Amino acid sequence: MKPINVGLLGIGTVGGGTFTVLSRNQEEITRRAGRPIRITTVADRNVELARSIVGDRARITADAFELVRDPEIDIVIELIGGYGVAKELILAAIENGKHVVTANKALLALHGNEIFAAASRKGVMVAFEAAVGGGIPIIKALREGLTANRIEWLAGIINGTTNFILTEMRDKGLSFEAVLGEAQKLGYAEADPTFDVEGVDAAHKLTIMSAIAFGVPIQFEKTYIEGISRLAREDIAYAEELGYRIKLLGIARRTARGLEQRVHPTLIPERRLIANVDGVMNAVLVKGDAVGHTLYYGRGAGAEPTASAVVADLVDVTRMHTSDPEHRVPHLAFQADQLVELPVLDIGDVETSFYLRIDVLDRPGVLADVTRILADHSISIKAMIQKQPKEGSDRTSIILLSNLVLERNMQQAIALIEKLPTVAAAVTRIRVEGLDN
Amino acid sequence: MKPINVGLLGIGTVGGGTFTVLSRNQEEITRRAGRPIRITTVADRNVELARSIVGDRARITADAFELVRDPEIDIVIELIGGYGVAKELILAAIENGKHVVTANKALLALHGNEIFAAASRKGVMVAFEAAVGGGIPIIKALREGLTANRIEWLAGIINGTTNFILTEMRDKGLSFEAVLGEAQKLGYAEADPTFDVEGVDAAHKLTIMSAIAFGVPIQFEKTYIEGISRLAREDIAYAEELGYRIKLLGIARRTARGLEQRVHPTLIPERRLIANVDGVMNAVLVKGDAVGHTLYYGRGAGAEPTASAVVADLVDVTRMHTSDPEHRVPHLAFQADQLVELPVLDIGDVETSFYLRIDVLDRPGVLADVTRILADHSISIKAMIQKQPKEGSDRTSIILLSNLVLERNMQQAIALIEKLPTVAAAVTRIRVEGLDN
Repeated sequence: MKPINVGLLGIGTVGGGTFTVLSRNQEEITRRAGRPIRITTVADRNVELARSIVGDRARITADAFELVRDPEIDIVIELIGGYGVAKELILAAIENGKHVVTANKALLALHGNEIFAAASRKGVMVAFEAAVGGGIPIIKALREGLTANRIEWLAGIINGTTNFILTEMRDKGLSFEAVLGEAQKLGYAEADPTFDVEGVDAAHKLTIMSAIAFGVPIQFEKTYIEGISRLAREDIAYAEELGYRIKLLGIARRTARGLEQRVHPTLIPERRLIANVDGVMNAVLVKGDAVGHTLYYGRGAGAEPTASAVVADLVDVTRMHTSDPEHRVPHLAFQADQLVELPVLDIGDVETSFYLRIDVLDRPGVLADVTRILADHSISIKAMIQKQPKEGSDRTSIILLSNLVLERNMQQAIALIEKLPTVAAAVTRIRVEGLDN
Repeated sequence: MKPINVGLLGIGTVGGGTFTVLSRNQEEITRRAGRPIRITTVADRNVELARSIVGDRARITADAFELVRDPEIDIVIELIGGYGVAKELILAAIENGKHVVTANKALLALHGNEIFAAASRKGVMVAFEAAVGGGIPIIKALREGLTANRIEWLAGIINGTTNFILTEMRDKGLSFEAVLGEAQKLGYAEADPTFDVEGVDAAHKLTIMSAIAFGVPIQFEKTYIEGISRLAREDIAYAEELGYRIKLLGIARRTARGLEQRVHPTLIPERRLIANVDGVMNAVLVKGDAVGHTLYYGRGAGAEPTASAVVADLVDVTRMHTSDPEHRVPHLAFQADQLVELPVLDIGDVETSFYLRIDVLDRPGVLADVTRILADHSISIKAMIQKQPKEGSDRTSIILLSNLVLERNMQQAIALIEKLPTVAAAVTRIRVEGLDN
């Protein structure tokens, strides 16, 4: 059969990986796809860099807009990133009747609804497996593998940088700052790590998964986001004493009152498989009403793992491009006219368990005061550790695990606890998820 | 759009689950598939049982062959099982131009090549996600999610009964026989558990995955099979002392000398995620050259988990049935004319590490004799435990972990060790897999 011609926008890490994987595995990929898939044109501002990777195996241009208008090109891969020119190029490619493959989670989280609507109007596909979980086929699992299910919730470790940092903090007993420096040296964290460590990247990915899981539009602005930069190593150690690990989780859940979409550090019982996903690895745990729990694990970033997802999308699009659009897999899993509006809950309306660390002066009655306030807010305690003060210090820590409580109630209780004269510092509170039902 | 009409062959556990899931989640499934998917006819010899499940929501017949000829039916689900009438019915359905969805791993492992060839000739699909790993979308991951990769190996816990038994043996320190009885009471093991405990069921599933991973025909008869019925609880305990868990793994690997296809108890380092997959849960670990390691975890059996996969196949077939056959996902991942013949290695030609337990008389020089024989066969030792004899006994055990060795060499060494006058019983040998490269 006739080869599929692909244009590649951006030949950085993932772009280079995509070119390499497609070349190296050309024979197997063709045996699977039924026809050759070849990158015929690469657009990159750095023409020399592009030439050094591509050699004479593809045409190189500095003009990305020329590429997306090229009538010879069937599929455009967008690996430029960001919200600006990447969006313009994707919309121009769609306008020119090209299918698009992208890894751009930030763009889809903010402008996905608009982009998918444009694609539907033109009858083309926008594929984005690489946008979530790197090489893990999690979009495919949610969109196609679990179609029988009413999905109840999903919880994912979907940012490798933060998972690496949390793993190192735990393994080596180091502070956040110390490990961040190490991660930057190893190339696991950016020079400006804000998007990763403050949970924004995870929130982008979570928002996309939530839309696919529940059949709702992408609603990034309603996602609650809390990163790991204020996490203290002692809380990781106390969590461990209680039988928990702390992970940055992206959680989307359907409740009777609305959807939860939230990213925050989370205590998870250490016996859960996902609690043992360490280093830069990612994993997503999904609860469906028929299938129960399934988990998907792999590398969430890196040149070739991400390229694996990009190329899988190329093969999918190659297979589906001759079919009538209404028989293709819908962009957001549900048919575009079948999305529903479900309210996303304010974090104050979310019910979870909590871990609290309360640093107090070692005086009689402190514990009674604290537990009285919790009881007044109908917060019951599941486990507690009280530490001996260190030699020569009159300060100590009370560590508590609560049962399920509305976040708003917990906030009120914490505000009162912090006003106690015997409470020496702001209360540390970290949400807890059992992930068992 | 016009509904898709489905005929269901066999309304046992999975058939009942499929009917239930499709009814309960009708609304979400239709929103995904773009049209209603409904079971219009059920064929079962037990018409009364069928009526008690289906009520008046579908026509019921005792004549399965009538169903597969019914011109109103688009897709036939085969959930009868076995090699006999199930095969006839599937071939008749194909002959009548129906698409087929089946969970019948035994049939596909033995007759899949013939069935897929018949389907290709008629331009229909035979979908079988439910045949491997129950509700885990592992066939989809291998066939579509990892198309960019040259798959190097996969290793799966793909039989829930044996994983439950191994987990209980370890947790409770019980013997195989004791736990088997418990598993039978709980419904996790059949009255005749041979297929499960002797590894045959796992081998069926492994053989199907191997074909998809490597683009070779299904070759069940070449799969090496060893079950768990002779596994002693002391070996589980010794493995634990060495930092390993014992799992029944199905392993398929591409080597320079040929393919490995083997099912056997295996020591896995306890820090590997898959070593922590317990109870009836299944998981498959896949190594691709681009993506690295990915893992897929979930329930490998049961009414609704298996129904989840059956219904996902229904949605897939519904989406693809209007497309031209050459643009569909090929049955075995690679285009039918692109399968290659790779030799499957005899188990004697497979290279692994080994765990050995050698029960010996507590005499001077025993260890020297054993290690001399191993050295003579170029087998080096990575770890060793020698136990003190029990009070009043003159017997003790030597436990060894070897480095990589050709199985044939190890067999020769073991034969010589067993001839030593100080060796008191047959040597126990269990293969070891690091799963790290």
